[in-house]
Amino acid sequence: MAAQPRWFQALNDALSLPENKGKIVYQLATTDLHNIPRVRSLQHRDFLIPKGLPSVPIILTTTDIRTPKVPQLLSTPTVEVVWWLDGTQEQFRITGKATVIPSREHPLHRTIDIPHDSALAVLNSEGEESSPGKYDWEKKRREVFDSMNSLRPVWARPPPGTVLESYDDAKAWPVTLPKLAEAETEEDKKNLEIAISNFALLLIEPTVVDWVQLGVKPDRRTKFTKEGQEWTEQILVP
Amino acid sequence: MAAQPRWFQALNDALSLPENKGKIVYQLATTDLHNIPRVRSLQHRDFLIPKGLPSVPIILTTTDIRTPKVPQLLSTPTVEVVWWLDGTQEQFRITGKATVIPSREHPLHRTIDIPHDSALAVLNSEGEESSPGKYDWEKKRREVFDSMNSLRPVWARPPPGTVLESYDDAKAWPVTLPKLAEAETEEDKKNLEIAISNFALLLIEPTVVDWVQLGVKPDRRTKFTKEGQEWTEQILVP
Repeated sequence: MAAQPRWFQALNDALSLPENKGKIVYQLATTDLHNIPRVRSLQHRDFLIPKGLPSVPIILTTTDIRTPKVPQLLSTPTVEVVWWLDGTQEQFRITGKATVIPSREHPLHRTIDIPHDSALAVLNSEGEESSPGKYDWEKKRREVFDSMNSLRPVWARPPPGTVLESYDDAKAWPVTLPKLAEAETEEDKKNLEIAISNFALLLIEPTVVDWVQLGVKPDRRTKFTKEGQEWTEQILVP
Repeated sequence: MAAQPRWFQALNDALSLPENKGKIVYQLATTDLHNIPRVRSLQHRDFLIPKGLPSVPIILTTTDIRTPKVPQLLSTPTVEVVWWLDGTQEQFRITGKATVIPSREHPLHRTIDIPHDSALAVLNSEGEESSPGKYDWEKKRREVFDSMNSLRPVWARPPPGTVLESYDDAKAWPVTLPKLAEAETEEDKKNLEIAISNFALLLIEPTVVDWVQLGVKPDRRTKFTKEGQEWTEQILVP
């Protein structure tokens, strides 16, 4: 069975160092509908590793289904993530295919397209202990939402990018929200319903990883390209 | 006369805080020739502020004229820079038009296109004390190169992205290079000639700035759009 790739080990090693502690913000680049590049910072949430295909760890982050990056991702699913680790002066550029998983009730749910030869398809067919043979994305989505803690109310706001009259308008928005199963007041229930309907998983399946190490002398650059289920490695001029 | 814009003041204020000390790495997104987004980290170098148009500060960074981002920038000059300031949890997304200024002898020098109504055109027509009426880009390029210090030898290497046999191949590359006027050995002179021929300025003239402040409560988002020589402001849902 294919092992975890060397770039993934290197990334985990770098993240485990004290000088990179808490460095879970990376930048996601997309192409907009006019082929203009767009880029914004996101928080990394997790890696999903198919048991039957540990050589292809899938990046898990989240989004609001109402943001402009969603139509951008649907139109041009090939994206690039750049993860700059200041503490060790390392950069991981990860090119991959993005998949957005919204609420089962959302109209965009039908756009989910999992290619049959993808790691996502392997993960999908494995399921979990509680649902063997079919990954329960709705359960995963709700679990990740519950883990968002102080961020949960963000998805109960008006759509990101809506024009406001004043910064004070934000004071009307919910400040905290309980986990999905823990709502007691009618207001929390209503806000949780809005928030979970807007919350979406964003998965990125890597195909190329370009790793630059500026913290070693001489500096190094290594490019990993997925071929079939394995990765080939090339040493490049940084 | 138009003053410096509020987003620029906010960015300078954020950069001057001790918690953002040394945070001069941002990410530049481009679209490649297949309309795939590409993004990499760059070091900020300076802002060029036209005396006659201080409302439009121009971002100055640098590149190797041999990197893939150069044809990407020439094909799709609208780019996006994202500057994440971890210390204050602030993000500046700057959309703008990129201009690459290579050596005067480089074939791409003729592709330099400065629109007549741009801040770059204003700067260009102002020149400097030593060359009034026409900005001396070659002088600026050489000055910025000289300021690169320990990075100067980087531009004397083989083209970025060239495949190597081994990490040890890098040990043959120059480790230090003097300033342009200070070369004494033939080897330094030869390497400096290569390096300065590959070194290029990369200028980005902002048209939209999207400023997100996650470090204040409630968090804030403000969008600045250049209209003529002024900026309009909109408060947005983050």
